[in-house]
Amino acid sequence: MKNYLKHDEWCIIEEGFNREFNEITESVCSLGNGRMGQRGNFEETFTGKTLQGNYVAGVYYPDKTRVGWWKNGYPEYFAKVLNAANWIGIKVEIEEEILDLHKAEVSDFKRVLNMKEGYLQRTFTATLPSGKQVKVDAKRFNSIVDDEAGAISYSITPLNFDGKIVLTPFIDGDIKNKDANYDEKFWDEVHKETAFAEGYVEMVTKKTGFHVVTGQKFQIFQNGKAIEFTSFPQKAEKYVASQVTLSAKANEATVLVKYACNLSSENHAISELLPKAKAYLARIEAKGFDKMLEEQAEKWASKWETNDIVIEGDVAAQQGIRFNIFQMNQTYTGEDARLNIGPKGFTGEKYGGSTYWDTEAYCIPFYLATADQQVARNLLVYRWKQLGKAIENAQKLGFKDGAALYPMVTMNGEECHNEWEITFEEIHRNGAIAYAIYDYVNYTGDEAYLAEYGFEVLLGIARFWSQRVNWSEAKKQYVMLGVTGPNEYENNVNNNWYTSYFAVWCMKYLIEVSEKIKASNPERFQELASLTNLNETDEFDRFNHIIRNMYLGEDKELGIFLQQDGFLDKELIKVSNLPTQERPINQKWSWDRILRSCFIKQADVLQGIYFFEDDFDAETIKRNYDFYEPMTVHESSLSPCVHSIIAAKLGDKARSYEFYQRSARLDLDDYNNDTEDGCHITSMAGTWMSIVKGFGGMRVRNGQVYLAPFVPENWTSFSFKIRFKGNLLNIKTYAHEVLIENILGDDTTIFVHGNTVELKEKSTVSIEQKLLN
Amino acid sequence: MKNYLKHDEWCIIEEGFNREFNEITESVCSLGNGRMGQRGNFEETFTGKTLQGNYVAGVYYPDKTRVGWWKNGYPEYFAKVLNAANWIGIKVEIEEEILDLHKAEVSDFKRVLNMKEGYLQRTFTATLPSGKQVKVDAKRFNSIVDDEAGAISYSITPLNFDGKIVLTPFIDGDIKNKDANYDEKFWDEVHKETAFAEGYVEMVTKKTGFHVVTGQKFQIFQNGKAIEFTSFPQKAEKYVASQVTLSAKANEATVLVKYACNLSSENHAISELLPKAKAYLARIEAKGFDKMLEEQAEKWASKWETNDIVIEGDVAAQQGIRFNIFQMNQTYTGEDARLNIGPKGFTGEKYGGSTYWDTEAYCIPFYLATADQQVARNLLVYRWKQLGKAIENAQKLGFKDGAALYPMVTMNGEECHNEWEITFEEIHRNGAIAYAIYDYVNYTGDEAYLAEYGFEVLLGIARFWSQRVNWSEAKKQYVMLGVTGPNEYENNVNNNWYTSYFAVWCMKYLIEVSEKIKASNPERFQELASLTNLNETDEFDRFNHIIRNMYLGEDKELGIFLQQDGFLDKELIKVSNLPTQERPINQKWSWDRILRSCFIKQADVLQGIYFFEDDFDAETIKRNYDFYEPMTVHESSLSPCVHSIIAAKLGDKARSYEFYQRSARLDLDDYNNDTEDGCHITSMAGTWMSIVKGFGGMRVRNGQVYLAPFVPENWTSFSFKIRFKGNLLNIKTYAHEVLIENILGDDTTIFVHGNTVELKEKSTVSIEQKLLN
Repeated sequence: MKNYLKHDEWCIIEEGFNREFNEITESVCSLGNGRMGQRGNFEETFTGKTLQGNYVAGVYYPDKTRVGWWKNGYPEYFAKVLNAANWIGIKVEIEEEILDLHKAEVSDFKRVLNMKEGYLQRTFTATLPSGKQVKVDAKRFNSIVDDEAGAISYSITPLNFDGKIVLTPFIDGDIKNKDANYDEKFWDEVHKETAFAEGYVEMVTKKTGFHVVTGQKFQIFQNGKAIEFTSFPQKAEKYVASQVTLSAKANEATVLVKYACNLSSENHAISELLPKAKAYLARIEAKGFDKMLEEQAEKWASKWETNDIVIEGDVAAQQGIRFNIFQMNQTYTGEDARLNIGPKGFTGEKYGGSTYWDTEAYCIPFYLATADQQVARNLLVYRWKQLGKAIENAQKLGFKDGAALYPMVTMNGEECHNEWEITFEEIHRNGAIAYAIYDYVNYTGDEAYLAEYGFEVLLGIARFWSQRVNWSEAKKQYVMLGVTGPNEYENNVNNNWYTSYFAVWCMKYLIEVSEKIKASNPERFQELASLTNLNETDEFDRFNHIIRNMYLGEDKELGIFLQQDGFLDKELIKVSNLPTQERPINQKWSWDRILRSCFIKQADVLQGIYFFEDDFDAETIKRNYDFYEPMTVHESSLSPCVHSIIAAKLGDKARSYEFYQRSARLDLDDYNNDTEDGCHITSMAGTWMSIVKGFGGMRVRNGQVYLAPFVPENWTSFSFKIRFKGNLLNIKTYAHEVLIENILGDDTTIFVHGNTVELKEKSTVSIEQKLLN
Repeated sequence: MKNYLKHDEWCIIEEGFNREFNEITESVCSLGNGRMGQRGNFEETFTGKTLQGNYVAGVYYPDKTRVGWWKNGYPEYFAKVLNAANWIGIKVEIEEEILDLHKAEVSDFKRVLNMKEGYLQRTFTATLPSGKQVKVDAKRFNSIVDDEAGAISYSITPLNFDGKIVLTPFIDGDIKNKDANYDEKFWDEVHKETAFAEGYVEMVTKKTGFHVVTGQKFQIFQNGKAIEFTSFPQKAEKYVASQVTLSAKANEATVLVKYACNLSSENHAISELLPKAKAYLARIEAKGFDKMLEEQAEKWASKWETNDIVIEGDVAAQQGIRFNIFQMNQTYTGEDARLNIGPKGFTGEKYGGSTYWDTEAYCIPFYLATADQQVARNLLVYRWKQLGKAIENAQKLGFKDGAALYPMVTMNGEECHNEWEITFEEIHRNGAIAYAIYDYVNYTGDEAYLAEYGFEVLLGIARFWSQRVNWSEAKKQYVMLGVTGPNEYENNVNNNWYTSYFAVWCMKYLIEVSEKIKASNPERFQELASLTNLNETDEFDRFNHIIRNMYLGEDKELGIFLQQDGFLDKELIKVSNLPTQERPINQKWSWDRILRSCFIKQADVLQGIYFFEDDFDAETIKRNYDFYEPMTVHESSLSPCVHSIIAAKLGDKARSYEFYQRSARLDLDDYNNDTEDGCHITSMAGTWMSIVKGFGGMRVRNGQVYLAPFVPENWTSFSFKIRFKGNLLNIKTYAHEVLIENILGDDTTIFVHGNTVELKEKSTVSIEQKLLN
């Protein structure tokens, strides 16, 4: 837990250079535009603690799997997000001395991530070993308008001397992933070239053959005017640069404006990469830095228009939630159905792969409520595109006849993970993928999606579950053996309630969807049946037999669902009885001890109750919550939000807020001592859910919005916006009043605390908060 | 399964060079003397398929652990048996051509491992690319008399030319382990020197700092007489050689006799290694090759005198069992309590570590019955010496107050293994280690061992179990959660019957041993209590409470013990219903599928019944055997022998023999396609047990020997020898008669098929076989 970043409503501010935390600040200050991302690294040389990170969406490398003991079925490769060419670099030399904040004395240092307008600014004064002082003001952004480009304005002012300044903006493609399994470099050089104040490196990834051209073009200004200069080209392996020697006067700024682009063969023909990159840079240079930044600010403003959550009375909370929303929008824009949301987004390279079940379980609700429905739809189509691979993946594990097991971690549909207890057994991910289809259709009403894409995915998943269970002669019921639930502090358990409940739901939903398609579009159903080799009678009979006869563990006496077989044999201890020095247990205890303890990493039974809350009465929910939560250590960033939502539902406002707080500033405060590896992007969506589904009590049932908002005690008010079908609503909640504004769209009706509220177009309704407060 | 080695009663014979199987033959033809070992590699250059292997007992290297995903508690290092300097090398050049069987035409090739006398001989004729032909006769052994030395007689005869032969005997220490985790070399050079026909390399292992001096000294003979010659010294990194150029005549043999030694700092002061090595070589050279070989043959004869098993009517079986006995004796001589029995002995480097539970569960009975009791005792003392490390190991996993968890794999007492489901959970190994103490005392009557060493180990183990179980409020009994039983095709299960039964037994035995020591030597007990901080009342109360209230799963209806919780939920299929192309399942099925199947890798419940057979009636044993064996795939080489013994006990002679056959020629026939990695040394002890405990029905109860022999149908007779207290007995079994000879020792009484048999000294008793045949 750290507290060195200043609280501010719109900015993340580091004042004074915190060298020891530099990798954390770099993660936090990452910039992205869905297409390319960049950690908050320095433009100039820095030999201190840093994790240089530049990422190009969709470009990955299958790194050879590293294991201690090979198990049959492990994937041979682990697809990793690639650290790509460094495009921000500007080497700065002052009379033979290299500007390097690791070696200079630094004062007036300030690094500001401006979330309102989407740029990073860094200002400082450096005193070099020789005593020369310079002032630097560097501003940069990854453009969300020109989304294959970034721009930098780098201003340097001598303070106590007149003299020579050498600026060498460069592109460096000689980059290695920190987490390469065998210490390899993943890029080969294809081509490089330089021209006046311009340079390009084309590289290709080993094995996958992605080509990326990274280019730069720059201008130099003195006294506010573009100057003429001579640039000396430099080349090295995977490296181009242009060296410019300038004479500078004390207190006169020299400004280098650098435009850079990353064009990848994911989006352009290989042969066109280089000419297109040149044209791209010419175009944005003509547009100019200021205009680009202006457009950036406008586009961010329009995003905030529909995305923003405003908290009154708590600056830290306001900053936390805006940071989360900002990062979610930087990571995924929803414009490309081949992309997805990596757990670290563009903020680090840890974990590899880009897609976990986090997308469906945590991110889809965020995008549904804050973006065009196409965004969530693209995330669903992503899985549909990978159905073939999911079927292959299941085949490798011995399943057949179109059964599909989606990977735990993937980039291109192939499994990347290699821990048997997760790779092969944490199969509940299949459930979340099916649920996201339900969630999307329920929210948007876009039932056509089911016939177009949804059915095939749902059938593959239902088939998997129907083969994954087996009939227990002992129980005379179906059982599901050898699984790992969401709580990864249990491995290879039998009859994990969450997984089994989800499996049954998937089969039920598939049958329901089938009936819908049959009724609305019988021809399409025939087409789908033929496409999927569906033997409707036999297969649906089996599904129905399983639905009716699935074993779901329950303890009648305690009135709870059993997380898994044997859970009650454990020594049941509350987390509050664990000595502080033994926590987090995943750092203090050996793995076997964690496994046989009762402690829960993240919601498991409660995760199921969260998804299927309408299946259970409030008493049942409360009993399970009261039983399981006290044993939950929340050592996954995905855990607190689910508990926050359930606590809110149960009327436990204080605890709901407490859970919210555990994840809202996770990265800003480096709560888990791991922000240096990158930010927890997907859990940010969970924080958003805590507010909207938790404090806001928002649900969609039968095509309508239900709200049950309350304001946490420490806040004056909070407001969030949701898009729902044709409407954009703003819900502002005070202790004694809820104001609901119908910003966009026709008249509509919603439910607040169970009561119908009519919302006229472009008007605001005030509702007294008396039921809950 | 291969069948290229000739059947012979005393020799392993390869006729004709089987290049593709060379690594297998190298494993099979390994030589060892308990102190150093050497695979059946060629002396001269060989550029074909080979795994060069030279091993020095007790010299290991802690290789940095390699894992895919780190789990808390994993050991940082994995101690590996080191591949050490090559001492057998002789480079042979014939008129500029290097003799290399990979490049020559080879005829009349024969490689013979003579198990009766303990040497390896290789003869062949090679036609070099130039057309020159030479005949070679190479004989070598690792001396069991001078057990830090080996000797080679290498005879080369030109067949179709007179000419120059250059012989360069060398020591090459520039050796790498094939299985090094990070491709490192583990040896550094300390010193090297050469003299006339002599040379030494001293090397030190990285990290562990073991020094080893490997030296050579040689003579050359022509026409049967030592000749004078000039030797040119050669040196390279970690390498010394002496080059000798000779003129040879067609059909006249040139014989190089090379003496080599490996002296390690495990046995000598570092400063004395080099002078001692020189003295050693001078001494054995003076003794001479023929004399050394004669002594070798004599010492092997004396071993066979007490070890041999003679099978009449089945040469393949005879060869198989002798090979097993031979390898057991080559691997461990019992003279050094710091050493133990690696699963591959000196025949390969796979697995690393030297000590598994195989030692206690499989090897101790062999050494008890065939060697001086000091040998088994040393194996027990080995564990006593490592008790401190076992306590540390348990502490790392969260146990306390002297609880000891012995490692799964070790070299120096520290855990080396890193698969959580085995490292942390396959804790039944602790049981076998306690059982070996019981086994030893039961067999030898050496109760003094308990007070001297046994008690401390037993207490550490009992303490571990008492902390490892927990009280289940649901069951109102103690349970043992999260374990892996001997059947490694189940991981992280609850209430594994074998482990829980063993835990209870360990606590009972500890209490029993405590009572014995208290009665016989109360002062020593006080001393031990104080040494171990024993709180007798509290600790023994807890032990007794667990003994009385331990949950042991059982299905009353089926009348079987439950391998683990939930076993009966599985789809119970017989192995006979598995398609052949799906076996072995560990190569054909993904790991999760194996885990949730009912298939059993090796005896689990039956392993428990094997150890504690007198606790169960025959019907119970039969029911469990009939239930579990049909689901057992025996994909561990340690499985069939246990089943063979139980089948024999149940009177199922045919199946007992069938199981015996599965492991008896495992390596000779390369049954599992893995002999090239080395031989399965510890399972060889299991094969011996199949005969002695299975077909011979031998048991020791109340200090007396019980036999129930029968002869398998395919054999005329078999006989085995056992040492028991003062006696050496030979038991020869025919279909209708058992002959028992009291070779050594006083009059004694044994039991055959339940009947008392009086054995006078130096006499033979014949018993009619009618009860069983």
